[in-house]
Amino acid sequence: MLWHTDSAQAMGSRPRIIVIGGGFAGLWAVRGLRHARADILLIDRCNHHTFQPLLYQVATAGLAAPSIAAPLRHILRRQSNVTVLLGNVTSIDTAGREVRIGEAGYSYDYLLVATGAAHAYFGHDEWAAHAPGLKTLEDALAMRARVLRAFERAEAAEDPAERDAWLTFVIVGGGATGVELAGTLAEIARHTLKREFRRIDPATARVLLIEAGPRVLPAFPEPLSASARRHLERLGVRVHTGRPITGVGERGVLIGTEPVAARTVLWAAGVAGSPLGRSLGVAVDSAGRVPVTADLSVAGHPEVFVAGDLARVPQSSGLVPGIAPAAKQMGTHVARTLRARLQGSGAKPFRYKHYGLLATIGRMAAVVDLGRIRLTGVLAWWFWLVAHIFFLIGFRNRLVVLIDWANAYWTYQRNARIIVD
Amino acid sequence: MLWHTDSAQAMGSRPRIIVIGGGFAGLWAVRGLRHARADILLIDRCNHHTFQPLLYQVATAGLAAPSIAAPLRHILRRQSNVTVLLGNVTSIDTAGREVRIGEAGYSYDYLLVATGAAHAYFGHDEWAAHAPGLKTLEDALAMRARVLRAFERAEAAEDPAERDAWLTFVIVGGGATGVELAGTLAEIARHTLKREFRRIDPATARVLLIEAGPRVLPAFPEPLSASARRHLERLGVRVHTGRPITGVGERGVLIGTEPVAARTVLWAAGVAGSPLGRSLGVAVDSAGRVPVTADLSVAGHPEVFVAGDLARVPQSSGLVPGIAPAAKQMGTHVARTLRARLQGSGAKPFRYKHYGLLATIGRMAAVVDLGRIRLTGVLAWWFWLVAHIFFLIGFRNRLVVLIDWANAYWTYQRNARIIVD
Repeated sequence: MLWHTDSAQAMGSRPRIIVIGGGFAGLWAVRGLRHARADILLIDRCNHHTFQPLLYQVATAGLAAPSIAAPLRHILRRQSNVTVLLGNVTSIDTAGREVRIGEAGYSYDYLLVATGAAHAYFGHDEWAAHAPGLKTLEDALAMRARVLRAFERAEAAEDPAERDAWLTFVIVGGGATGVELAGTLAEIARHTLKREFRRIDPATARVLLIEAGPRVLPAFPEPLSASARRHLERLGVRVHTGRPITGVGERGVLIGTEPVAARTVLWAAGVAGSPLGRSLGVAVDSAGRVPVTADLSVAGHPEVFVAGDLARVPQSSGLVPGIAPAAKQMGTHVARTLRARLQGSGAKPFRYKHYGLLATIGRMAAVVDLGRIRLTGVLAWWFWLVAHIFFLIGFRNRLVVLIDWANAYWTYQRNARIIVD
Repeated sequence: MLWHTDSAQAMGSRPRIIVIGGGFAGLWAVRGLRHARADILLIDRCNHHTFQPLLYQVATAGLAAPSIAAPLRHILRRQSNVTVLLGNVTSIDTAGREVRIGEAGYSYDYLLVATGAAHAYFGHDEWAAHAPGLKTLEDALAMRARVLRAFERAEAAEDPAERDAWLTFVIVGGGATGVELAGTLAEIARHTLKREFRRIDPATARVLLIEAGPRVLPAFPEPLSASARRHLERLGVRVHTGRPITGVGERGVLIGTEPVAARTVLWAAGVAGSPLGRSLGVAVDSAGRVPVTADLSVAGHPEVFVAGDLARVPQSSGLVPGIAPAAKQMGTHVARTLRARLQGSGAKPFRYKHYGLLATIGRMAAVVDLGRIRLTGVLAWWFWLVAHIFFLIGFRNRLVVLIDWANAYWTYQRNARIIVD
């Protein structure tokens, strides 16, 4: 096989580039190499690219999973220098320049590791079973089933305390994902499920958003945080700031020292770089991110790059944030660097260009920070909508997502309210 | 709780009707009772009604799961005499008139069991792990993942024999589901995946349709069977009739005495009535169906009805077929009977009205048998399409399914090609 280390055919004349991860960083790097005289192997453990900014919509039953995902093979079908491989990379040997998937080894001349981040539970991995996070489509479908089933359990419960616990939803983490989940859940409880139950009133459900820091959306300017909080509270979300979660179990959480009975806890707090980052021979930071040099390569290994959420990239104002536009820019930069290297010329250092931050808060409200321009409310929401539709991959997906959002707007319905295990 | 047997509140003044199963039979019965002065409890182990005739489209990545399903609660939200309960009925006590879900008991005055059928493996339950069937959305998503992953495995395989085995798809059973699966798979291999792989040519995939009887679509008139077979063969499907499957394993099947190496085997053959049918105190037939009297009640228990695929209903030309229109008619009839009983009047015997049979064979071809009128080819396909869109529940679903079909027609693409486990 062309790619196997131990194969005679591995002696191709073109340089071999392996990209691990078909998220924003990896996919944008591969696309940036479309004219490169190289053989590219893109390895991902999923067969699809996922539009992560809308994962929360799949988790809250607003969108079907296929609407925010597209098969990597299909996206790249016309780029003949790419081979896509479904596989779970088990180790990387930077000395031998080889990537391993179980027994099979794949050698490279250049490597990009763009495997992103998973959730982190601040050293409490035992919380994971009770507080699922949201990083993949699998996570989103599991979260959807958990949320929908909670209302079913509440309807069937005999004991009032038990019923209340099933009607209490705790979201841990007041970043964009936490805010978006909380706003949507409040809307589902108040509007979507109206009249559908006979023994409970879903509108009495409690949605708690817990942020350990002093305010929600800490990455946004303070006035936007305050606006987001007001909008959330208007939707019925109880926002708790300044106290961390200190315990998570099957029956509830501890907020500081206060126990709250809740059968549904959703995790939108810590992130940890993918474990593959640890096999690159450099010390990762406390969040598992890999420190990179100015061209996004790893110190001592100019042929190994890291991009996206896994990369720790300093800039004047702290670190480059773990958001989709940053991952795309890094992927594009790695492609540019590789093209330059393949042609024997030098490359420029990576410089992150910050366009802004967006977060939506339920129906027709959002906050947008574009530096000089700040938007809140309906205008921000329209901006958010247009931006997300624009960046979705596939005409069909854009159309169907628009239909689903229009339908959700007019009917308060959510179109993917099915529990599938 | 209103419904618990051991509750004082169970002494309501209105008769209690329990319906088990929210498929076509159960849901149509509940809807037919919308003006009845009764308390109805609809129990299903899923939270949604599934449009089973399009399950194969979910399994073959043409449609997203939410496009063919709708939450039962939402469908019935305005029918105030219905309570929907998510639960898995574990036993029925016809003497004590009680339905049990684990520890909880629910008493009834009238009962409708409409739990349908599952796959049957002709006494070879060990085949199930290697040859999944298609009855639920879970089945469809698992089948989709299996089919898509087979092409990925073929692309990664080193050994040519192994590669061929991953590119061989065996569909067992030449009824409508088997024909629809085979036609669609052949189309995916030939068109949808074109240019997406680098080491295999998906068009070389072999799709085998195995029917033990003398012809495919045995329920259709012979000329239509012949037409379907021609269409399938034109799509590249290898149709084997007259020889049964005698073995199924991880690496292939035995057709009669001939071994065929195949890593993907899909089951569209035997069906077996739901196990709940055995708890009604009458002997079920060899397919697990419950024999019913003229009004669809169980002999000796005029208050217990069976409808849909689980009911064995004789008619002049054999048995009423296990198709959606028959299930709806039975459900509607049970509702009519119950309304009459509640008003103290008598009910008429059930009489099945046969409108016809449809099956589609890949792109723009189908067979339609309306008795006097028989259609094949493009005209039949349009008939099939209009009928299915018409009977789908929900305006949003109709629109999105039409978009997905139009897109599939123009681009040969399938919109739900994502593997989610």
